[in-house]
Amino acid sequence: MTNQKVRVIQYGCGNMAKVIVPYLLEKGAEIVGAIDTNPAIVGMDVGEFAGLDHKLGITISDDADQVLDTVSADIAVVTLFSFVSDNFAHFKRVLEHGVNVVTTSEEMFYSWNTSAQKTNELNRIAKDHGVSITGSGMQDIFWSQLPLTVMAGAHQVDRIEGAVSYNVEDYGLALAQAHGVGLSPDDFKHQITEVESFPSYMWNSGEELVSHLGWTIRSISEKRVPVTADQTVHSDTTGEDIPAGHAIGMSAVCTIETYQGPTLVLQTIGKVYQPGEGDLCEWHLKGTPNVDFAVAKPDTVAHTCATIVNRIPDVINAAPGVVTVDQLPGLRYRSAPLGSYVK
Amino acid sequence: MTNQKVRVIQYGCGNMAKVIVPYLLEKGAEIVGAIDTNPAIVGMDVGEFAGLDHKLGITISDDADQVLDTVSADIAVVTLFSFVSDNFAHFKRVLEHGVNVVTTSEEMFYSWNTSAQKTNELNRIAKDHGVSITGSGMQDIFWSQLPLTVMAGAHQVDRIEGAVSYNVEDYGLALAQAHGVGLSPDDFKHQITEVESFPSYMWNSGEELVSHLGWTIRSISEKRVPVTADQTVHSDTTGEDIPAGHAIGMSAVCTIETYQGPTLVLQTIGKVYQPGEGDLCEWHLKGTPNVDFAVAKPDTVAHTCATIVNRIPDVINAAPGVVTVDQLPGLRYRSAPLGSYVK
Repeated sequence: MTNQKVRVIQYGCGNMAKVIVPYLLEKGAEIVGAIDTNPAIVGMDVGEFAGLDHKLGITISDDADQVLDTVSADIAVVTLFSFVSDNFAHFKRVLEHGVNVVTTSEEMFYSWNTSAQKTNELNRIAKDHGVSITGSGMQDIFWSQLPLTVMAGAHQVDRIEGAVSYNVEDYGLALAQAHGVGLSPDDFKHQITEVESFPSYMWNSGEELVSHLGWTIRSISEKRVPVTADQTVHSDTTGEDIPAGHAIGMSAVCTIETYQGPTLVLQTIGKVYQPGEGDLCEWHLKGTPNVDFAVAKPDTVAHTCATIVNRIPDVINAAPGVVTVDQLPGLRYRSAPLGSYVK
Repeated sequence: MTNQKVRVIQYGCGNMAKVIVPYLLEKGAEIVGAIDTNPAIVGMDVGEFAGLDHKLGITISDDADQVLDTVSADIAVVTLFSFVSDNFAHFKRVLEHGVNVVTTSEEMFYSWNTSAQKTNELNRIAKDHGVSITGSGMQDIFWSQLPLTVMAGAHQVDRIEGAVSYNVEDYGLALAQAHGVGLSPDDFKHQITEVESFPSYMWNSGEELVSHLGWTIRSISEKRVPVTADQTVHSDTTGEDIPAGHAIGMSAVCTIETYQGPTLVLQTIGKVYQPGEGDLCEWHLKGTPNVDFAVAKPDTVAHTCATIVNRIPDVINAAPGVVTVDQLPGLRYRSAPLGSYVK
């Protein structure tokens, strides 16, 4: 497909799409459809939506089937929900139209165990229609390929420790409440720690990492603990001053033991950032030798969107089915138009 | 070759070999020859040399031809000199015996330009004998695959800045003098900056990085400047107290401009470390977005030796010739015996 433009449907027009659409255009792709149900933007030109100074001639539509029935696309970039269950009907619809999917769904990065039934259904649907679906984003590079690369420079790795963070102030009230922002230690215990919930994002990326290494999981579990501050912290999202000792967010620590020996301890921290704080991405390998490495305050949104765009040729080239990134080539920087990487 | 042992000749028995030999054994390889001319160790069992508690039955020999004539080996690990010219006769001898080579020679990591004639001769010899030769080590992961991986999570990279360091106290008097340790600013200028010399290690790794990205070099140059301290620093190697403002070492800054636009600025710092200092490995990508990442005090010797060992299956699997790592698969962590990765 060299020198052909990759044709993309942007499925979900939110904050991520505003970053992804210009990245796509700069990488030589063409937007052939845009889907969202938000009444504030339905009917808007997707170029104007993305802040470009010109229209793209593609209107944001709330009728996904109509878009998929009437355009020919190579891939849909699905930026809707975190969990497979919420995305399932949308993924199914796209795949059944014979269009590949790349998605920011964090669970979809490796959902073979956390949503086994639905992932297997998607795998079957994708194979039946000759297309593939892959979850990518920040995880693909910074929580997977980066530690894998550093491991390749080590002799022996016995333990992998990773820690990442995000600011709960960026994601609205529901997420802040789900992270126990403002709760006392007792309330946090009863309302968060002891309640069953979805796994953290690092749970899924940890499963991918283990699979990527050819290891198998012997046990996997997660513990949610409050993150507290020594002083009063204000949350714009909840509108409250959080007393010292109360939760300013949550740390989910996922521990994976493998039959091959090594243990992974993966910490996902969502909290109210204080001035000067930024996202965290740090890794510690214990073994021969020990290795400590970190990305300083990564721009998580930009990296997620860039990675999604850079992955597009691999997803188009992939064998049909649910293709997690452990089954794809190592991701490469794309200095040429995306179409030039499509086989 | 699954479940077959990889048979290795250790060519050069110095400090690196002491680390590499146990790594090789732990990864299921077999030492079938050991070569060095140091009278203090010729005749010694290579297992004892490497500090193992048992003999390997392989004696360190100063007769390379005799070893190569009388054993069957898959690969030689050549840990002799930094520059291709010093290694050339040794590489040639191994290749002519139909044995693959992996080497710690820093120039060999990408010597197509800095030693064009000799590299092309080696390429021809290797092809004629159906074997391959690759330079690897710290560079392979930490100066190449690591920045390449992080770039894959970026949208646009306009400038790549890298900085690495080593302690000149670890490498003897000749190296300390070559780094201008103790010189006044004027003496440094006349004896170091204005004198023609070999390129720094980052020069060669920078060329590899550019090639790996599919870019081409428009200009490449290097500037050597003194590294100074604000206070008196003692060098055990020179036995002198270095006054404040005099050189405690050298920083070689290699600047590469590419036809494709991006610029690389790669700094190799060799200096007398002060208490608490460790090796440096930090990278800054300028573009969309900016990214800053670092490995904290990497154990350069361990990483070099681990990477050399982990690369062995790729070198054995490679097409004949001089094969720089931009032509090899991305390096992977080896949790299984090396032989299981050989095709």
